Amino acid sequence: MKEQTNNNSRRKFLQKSAVASAAMMSGSWAAFSNQNNMSTEETANNVIPNGPIKTKGYAATDESGKLSPWEFERRPVGDDDILIDIKYASICHSDIHQEKGHWGEQKYPQVPGHEIVGVVAAVGKNVTKFKVGDRAGVGCMVDSCMECDSCNAGEEHFCDRGETKFTYGAPSEAEPTGITQGGYSNKLVVRDHFAVRVPDHISFEEAAPLLCAGITTYSPLMRAQFKVGDKVGVAGIGGLGHLAVKIAVSKGAKVYAFTTSEDKVEDIKSWGVEEVIVVDDEFKNMGAYNKTLDYMISTIPYQFNVTPYVMCLKPGGTFTFVGMPEKSEITLNNLMLAFARVNFNASLIGGIPETQEVVNYCADNGIRPSIEIINAEEINEAWDKVVNKEARYRYVIDAATF
Amino acid sequence: MKEQTNNNSRRKFLQKSAVASAAMMSGSWAAFSNQNNMSTEETANNVIPNGPIKTKGYAATDESGKLSPWEFERRPVGDDDILIDIKYASICHSDIHQEKGHWGEQKYPQVPGHEIVGVVAAVGKNVTKFKVGDRAGVGCMVDSCMECDSCNAGEEHFCDRGETKFTYGAPSEAEPTGITQGGYSNKLVVRDHFAVRVPDHISFEEAAPLLCAGITTYSPLMRAQFKVGDKVGVAGIGGLGHLAVKIAVSKGAKVYAFTTSEDKVEDIKSWGVEEVIVVDDEFKNMGAYNKTLDYMISTIPYQFNVTPYVMCLKPGGTFTFVGMPEKSEITLNNLMLAFARVNFNASLIGGIPETQEVVNYCADNGIRPSIEIINAEEINEAWDKVVNKEARYRYVIDAATF
Repeated sequence: MKEQTNNNSRRKFLQKSAVASAAMMSGSWAAFSNQNNMSTEETANNVIPNGPIKTKGYAATDESGKLSPWEFERRPVGDDDILIDIKYASICHSDIHQEKGHWGEQKYPQVPGHEIVGVVAAVGKNVTKFKVGDRAGVGCMVDSCMECDSCNAGEEHFCDRGETKFTYGAPSEAEPTGITQGGYSNKLVVRDHFAVRVPDHISFEEAAPLLCAGITTYSPLMRAQFKVGDKVGVAGIGGLGHLAVKIAVSKGAKVYAFTTSEDKVEDIKSWGVEEVIVVDDEFKNMGAYNKTLDYMISTIPYQFNVTPYVMCLKPGGTFTFVGMPEKSEITLNNLMLAFARVNFNASLIGGIPETQEVVNYCADNGIRPSIEIINAEEINEAWDKVVNKEARYRYVIDAATF
Repeated sequence: MKEQTNNNSRRKFLQKSAVASAAMMSGSWAAFSNQNNMSTEETANNVIPNGPIKTKGYAATDESGKLSPWEFERRPVGDDDILIDIKYASICHSDIHQEKGHWGEQKYPQVPGHEIVGVVAAVGKNVTKFKVGDRAGVGCMVDSCMECDSCNAGEEHFCDRGETKFTYGAPSEAEPTGITQGGYSNKLVVRDHFAVRVPDHISFEEAAPLLCAGITTYSPLMRAQFKVGDKVGVAGIGGLGHLAVKIAVSKGAKVYAFTTSEDKVEDIKSWGVEEVIVVDDEFKNMGAYNKTLDYMISTIPYQFNVTPYVMCLKPGGTFTFVGMPEKSEITLNNLMLAFARVNFNASLIGGIPETQEVVNYCADNGIRPSIEIINAEEINEAWDKVVNKEARYRYVIDAATF
């Protein structure tokens, strides 16, 4: 695996920006558009493929948690669809939970992946949102009714008709495999509305994790309406948590990061947090933070003892769960909750407008996930590392290797 | 058991009021004060007993949930204490949970009871809040540090020093039995601050349940800040729930009462609710209320499937737990919580100023618990009925029968 640090990518970003600026200043549109992997020829040249789209990817075939190469077909590009040549897809702990059947029985083969970026290769005849050559990203959902109040309000993940279609594993008559298939693959057909624009000034590989980890943490953080200087706790510093830290710091919070991994401390400090708390098995060192935080977000993706975390909040504070444990079950102590006087809630990704917002916000404000790029054949190893808390902090699969 | 209906007591109240008014109009103070079980002689005659206070009550001696008569001593009346001649104490499901050890190991013999009313029989030399003959009530706590921010803010149940002393079973060096002893007895010695005034225009027996069931439901209902016409759900229509209904109706809410007891429907309707929903084992009839309520309070004192209740709330609504199940544990489905977008919290009684507020509010606004008065020897039978959901709706023990 080749590691790509934040600084490294920040450097690349600056280089790219410099090239783009130079190109724009010189009036050379061709040079600029080339920089962004598109040409005027490509833009004009919208050839809608006939029939199903042959796709290569990695699929789970059972609950073992092991993936293997798989060739399959996606639905033909419909009038409201776009075809994306996937460039990168990143690995979310949810992929592992779902393919292992932790959240319910699955249909296999199933290609996971809901942090997807690439280049638009074709657009259906009704599509105005994208043109060939555009940079696009797809997150956790690919369809909904688009007519109900929730959909109209940009909350397609809460479609009132229950027609939210998640990116992989959702029953779909349109798909030749009978279910939606995710982003660990080289091509994707998706309804245009469910793709967001990826700005030029963020790399594909760094944009990918924003499509789930980014929006999933950004949405509740914004809803919390914390003020500059408020104390925000982040529990679990993995793929989601490290983005929660960076977003909250960027928004002016004093961030308290709670991790069980001693060796993440220096990384986390470099992201501008107020304090890193290395949580021990008996939560001994958490008593010092009793009633100190205004808000807390937990990204911990398994069942854990919530009490010591909740006790860190001031009375009236809010604790938000975004990690989804096995069976989605969490056990609370009611009496503790009553004494703590804390509001407890959970949050699920975000709608398409807000997903566009977080991608733009991160692109514009220098927020970049810390990633490691891997090849397709390294996915299984990467999954093991995610489970063992060894990811630093998001594995991004190079789709050219499928 | 002699049943006492709301109308019955309402009638009594009117009779008493009439007598009082007549007495005041005629300038006959003696007649008025006599009406209130005190005489000028009694008021002036503050004889502080020497030594411990001999008391008769009913105590648990083990986790069997069976109580038996017990004579014991309370601490002498201290300078800041009052001695109350108990008139009535009512039965709370918490009494049963605690004496059966559901919330942790107990020291026995232990006298339960934290809904206590009576007449002040003596006051310590520093006491100005009460005088002999005053009507007084005591709820779930009898002491705290009285110096910390929480205590100073009238939130003695959240004493920052952890010195909140609950009414029974709390270790206490001052008490001859080593623990605090509750209200199923004929006398109580309590620090003056932890007793509230019981207005003349509510009967003792009807005031008793306000000291726990009243404040425990009133406090979160007020914190919810619902507006007139908002839809408020109440889950579990027992001792707490029936008061939650009456208070919420009185405050202008449209109340939706959820009960598993078909035979409570007519009672509940008579309290002015919008609808009564008889919940079946499979929650079939709850789907119709999906996303309709602004707020919901659950008084259900055991573990139950929270999901169908939470789903009745509008997104952004709040669900408050006040029932305390065994081990205080409640299991939630995180995914459900995320989809519902509901804030979940728990609430624990209320502080002394707010306890006085609820007693006054109920006295002034005709809110009366529905009670059955029992003798001491009927306590065990009553406990069984509470567990079997047969209480209608609060058993009140006549302390003259200890």
